[in-house]
This record gives sequence, structure tokens and C-alpha cells, in this order.
Amino acid sequence: MDEPDATFLLQLADAADRETLPRFRAGGGIDNKLSGGDFDPVTEADRAAERAIRKLIGAHFPDHAIVGEEYGETGGGDRRWIIDPIDGTRAFITGIPVWGTLIGHYDAGRAKMGIMSQPFTGERFFADGRGSFLKRGDGEARPIAVRKTETIADATLFTTSPRLFSGDLLGRFEALEGAARLTRFGTDCYAFAMLAAGHVDLVVEGGLKPYDIAALIPLIEQAGGIVTTFAGDRPEQGGDILAAATPALHEAARRILAG
Amino acid sequence: MDEPDATFLLQLADAADRETLPRFRAGGGIDNKLSGGDFDPVTEADRAAERAIRKLIGAHFPDHAIVGEEYGETGGGDRRWIIDPIDGTRAFITGIPVWGTLIGHYDAGRAKMGIMSQPFTGERFFADGRGSFLKRGDGEARPIAVRKTETIADATLFTTSPRLFSGDLLGRFEALEGAARLTRFGTDCYAFAMLAAGHVDLVVEGGLKPYDIAALIPLIEQAGGIVTTFAGDRPEQGGDILAAATPALHEAARRILAG
Repeated sequence: MDEPDATFLLQLADAADRETLPRFRAGGGIDNKLSGGDFDPVTEADRAAERAIRKLIGAHFPDHAIVGEEYGETGGGDRRWIIDPIDGTRAFITGIPVWGTLIGHYDAGRAKMGIMSQPFTGERFFADGRGSFLKRGDGEARPIAVRKTETIADATLFTTSPRLFSGDLLGRFEALEGAARLTRFGTDCYAFAMLAAGHVDLVVEGGLKPYDIAALIPLIEQAGGIVTTFAGDRPEQGGDILAAATPALHEAARRILAG
Repeated sequence: MDEPDATFLLQLADAADRETLPRFRAGGGIDNKLSGGDFDPVTEADRAAERAIRKLIGAHFPDHAIVGEEYGETGGGDRRWIIDPIDGTRAFITGIPVWGTLIGHYDAGRAKMGIMSQPFTGERFFADGRGSFLKRGDGEARPIAVRKTETIADATLFTTSPRLFSGDLLGRFEALEGAARLTRFGTDCYAFAMLAAGHVDLVVEGGLKPYDIAALIPLIEQAGGIVTTFAGDRPEQGGDILAAATPALHEAARRILAG
């Protein structure tokens, strides 16, 4: 193929799923990435999935750069693949099916395509440059879109953990939480997929790496949503990230979070 | 049949699933149970599932009492069914597949059998009086068991939200969180199922109703785990609930939580 397309995104997800799903709930070896007291598990599933994705990209697009959580950066140029083989490793090792394999594609620094694969539920959320879609199992890919919530009082808010925030930022997060209709924790990449699919309205995450958000930017944008840093800048480099269903909601939440 | 058995539990789950799954992510009507500012959604899926479960119990065991979240208590005597048609309604309305239908059976005040059904993932976690099992889709039911974690430093802790706790109890919860290896939020009934299946070690929840825990007591106990109130009493009437994989871990966590 000349250019990556939806079929290629789904092939990448297949390759990753073959490595991740058999190891989910299998009690396999969990290393501890940090030597200190914090616990940051990395499983063999992470590494094997990233290797499988890299191999397939290398075979089809050898001149594209690849940046992955486990194996760093290889190659250069404007066309870049950004990989988190298992986003939500803690969900993965505790049996909760809200983790996902994230694969994003940037062109000249802009996120253009991306896929989130959750193989236990059989879901693939992806954006191919023309729109955002959900495909489940052998079913047809169906278009997804954000919903039209415009006020924080009507909004459902997701974040992985209030422990992501401290100091002034914690106070601002709690102000947003207090104003929202409903807040849920513990959602990892799945939260952004639910935003793109119109089930929730706001997602806030602190201190994301580029590979935590790359695949999800086109998914949100091509579903009609908005995703930026708390400062309102482009999200491709990660950081403190706010995603919203509508421009009005985004701006209202951003004003609270930016202080 | 003379007595309820695993087959009957699975039939009850089938009846509930037929009502819940088609309404999951369907954007159906959500009422607000509370008239004040708090948001406690109840969906038509809740009510329809409880009606379906009640109908099937009534047809097979007309002399058994039934207690359900949506329709209250009917009948009397030692044999009682305790139903939460959708535990994790907030997960349900936000698209996250960690909600479940909970159906427990008490004999003379003791939880003897129970099932948790998660139809989107196709999982049924159940205890039939002889053991705890996981059955997925058309697969065989496989025995599940807790793991053997004995210290808090080695334990993974789950709770739905730190917002469940306040005052002194919040301080004690945070002490437990600080001592645990890993803490995750946002898990509802799924957390107890993961404990029974050996993926996590501790689950703490505040202010549960009997129907929030009834089905899960036999699931945990027949998988080898321990579940009590924070005071160490039997959990059949709900309250502040602690579930643990081993007696040593349970006692260590209980000492922290009881203050």
C-alpha cells in the first residue's frame, strides 16, 4: 500500500492483540520498572505487542519513524507512529478490561490517524483521517460521534485517578469535579474512547506522555470533539490534557483547570 | 427443580441480560432517582431486569422471598433472593463494562449462592454452594480461586471511589491506600469478581446496601476469600465492607480500617 489506511490500522491491532490477549489474566511475569517504592508494572505483553507492531510498520512503511513506550524512538522524518502497546497496564494486571493498545500516526507533528484496541471486549475504536469508527469483533465498522453537551452542570467527567493531581491543580480539578453532573475514576484510554463514542463529555488527565494520547487525538477530533492541553495548546506532545465533547464545554472546563 | 442450582443461576442471568444488554450504550432514558442535587441514575434496564428475575424466581420458587433494589421486598421466610439488577449504574450509563447484574440467595440469613453477570464481556461469575466459577459465553464454567497474598505491602486494593469515605474513615482509608502496593478506583462489583478470580487482593467499599454485596459474598467465600464488615461482622446486611484474599491480609487491613 502507498499510504496507511483503516485496513492497516486494523492489521496493526490484530498483531498487537495476538500478543496481549493470551497474556491477559494469565498471571504472567510482571516486572517492576522502577527500582524505588513506586510500582510501575511492565509486562511481557507490553514488549511483545510493541515488537509486533514495529515489525508490521517496518515491513510496510520502512521510511516512517516509530516512537514506542517500551523501545524508544527509531528513524526520523515527518511520518511518525506513536505506540503505547498497553495503555492502562494497571488495569491489565488487575483483570479490568479498560486497557488498550494505542497506535497513532503523525504527519509533520499533527495526529492524523489512530486506533485503540481492547481485545477482551473485541472493540476497536479508530480514526482513519475521514472519521471515527467503532468496530466490534467481526461486525461492521460504525461511525461514532461525540454528544452535544455544552455545560459542565450537564457533563459527565472521567479521569483515571484524583491522585494524578496535587497542590493548586488538585484544587482546580476538585472544583471541576464539584461542578460536573457525575465523575468517574479508573478509566485510562477507555475514557477517551467513550468520549468519542458519545457516552461521556469530559476527560481530564495529568502528565500524559505523547504515546498516552497520540492515537486518541484523531479519534476524538474526527468524532467531533476537542482535545488540547490545559493551556489550550495542541496535545500531540502530551502533558496535562483536557478532552471535551463541544467547544463551549471545553472552554468552560479549561477556564477552571487553567486557574 | 427442588432446589436452586448453577443452571438456575445462569437462567436468571440470561433473563436479566436480555433486558440490560440491548439498552447498554443505547442512549435510553435515564431518570434521576433523587430530587435534590445528587445524581443517582436509574435506567429502564434496571427495572426491566429486576422484573424478569422476579418472574423467573416466582415461577420456580413461589414460596421464596425476594428483595430487590427497584421493587423492594416481597414474601417472607428463610429462603430469600437479593437482587441488584444493575450494580454500577454509573458505569452502565457511561459505557464502561464493569457493571453487573447481582443475584444472591440467602438461607436463614446466610449467603449461600450468587451470580454476577456482565453481558457485554459475556462473563458470569457465580457460586453454587460447592465452589466459585467463571463461565464466559458458551465456554465451560471454570473454577476460580483467590490468590495467596498475605501482606498489605504486596496487595492490590480496589475501591469504587475515595469519595465514599469522609472524616476519620477517609484518613484510615488513605492509610491503607498508602500501604498497599497498588490502588485502583472505579470498579463496582467487578472488583469483587476480580478478587474471587485471583487478580486483586483487597476490596473496600463504604455504605453498601445488602443487594450490593449479597451475590458477591458466596462468590468470594467459595473462592477461598474472606468478606466482613469493617468491624469483622458477617456482611449479609451490607455496610462498610472489606473483602480480602487471605485471613492474614484481611486482619491487617481490618486493623487499619477499624481505627
